[in-house]
Amino acid sequence: MNGPKMTQRKNPDIAPAIFYNMDLCPTRAVFSKLSGKWPVLIITHLSFGSHRFSELLGAIPDISQRMLTQTLRSLERDGMAIRTATASIPPRVDYRLSELGQSYLEGLESILQWSLKSRAEIEAAQAAYDDRAAAKIAKAS
Amino acid sequence: MNGPKMTQRKNPDIAPAIFYNMDLCPTRAVFSKLSGKWPVLIITHLSFGSHRFSELLGAIPDISQRMLTQTLRSLERDGMAIRTATASIPPRVDYRLSELGQSYLEGLESILQWSLKSRAEIEAAQAAYDDRAAAKIAKAS
Repeated sequence: MNGPKMTQRKNPDIAPAIFYNMDLCPTRAVFSKLSGKWPVLIITHLSFGSHRFSELLGAIPDISQRMLTQTLRSLERDGMAIRTATASIPPRVDYRLSELGQSYLEGLESILQWSLKSRAEIEAAQAAYDDRAAAKIAKAS
Repeated sequence: MNGPKMTQRKNPDIAPAIFYNMDLCPTRAVFSKLSGKWPVLIITHLSFGSHRFSELLGAIPDISQRMLTQTLRSLERDGMAIRTATASIPPRVDYRLSELGQSYLEGLESILQWSLKSRAEIEAAQAAYDDRAAAKIAKAS
């Protein structure tokens, strides 16, 4: 039997074990929460600067007011976004990324850039896989 | 009215617009799929080397056989993982990361390292937020 072929890992201290249990593993919880669709969309949007609640609501066509409120509150509670309420008439509420939130952008953009760069290769792999599956079915029938 | 305060972005060509529509935006689809709990766990595991199906099933305590099969098939179809079937008795099936899969590790590990590093700061922010919320309730009652 062959042993596992070890690949080059930049950070070998991140063992899979740390992700196994959501309760025991806050890192997995942090990653799961912040890599969700809505947090990523809102964080990406705030990376361009401070925005009012209504601007965010208008800019993200498929988000509900309730989901936007919830996600912003969660980002504020996690220290990722800063909420500023101005006692004007009408009152206004702005959101911007905290330093912590900005520090998240580098890794996030690295993954998004990878997705952008790798899309064609992934689509080619999917087409090849589907062709092989179709050929297998044709051969069996 | 103030214009948005622009923050420093490393890659200004990733506009939020590209994430708005899952159909129009394969990048968002790619990111959403590969940042899920099971793909991340399995990719992290395979980053240590080739593994048999049964090894992965044993190593990830809370995954079902059906979910492991589905996720591995999806990773294979996307060109992220390579499946090797050996016609031995009993037959064995191994999975390893493709070059594409390995190229995903850098961004993934960057985000996971950030999660690990930022965990304490996030937990402190959550505690402070909850204290402020409790103080507000105490003041109002």
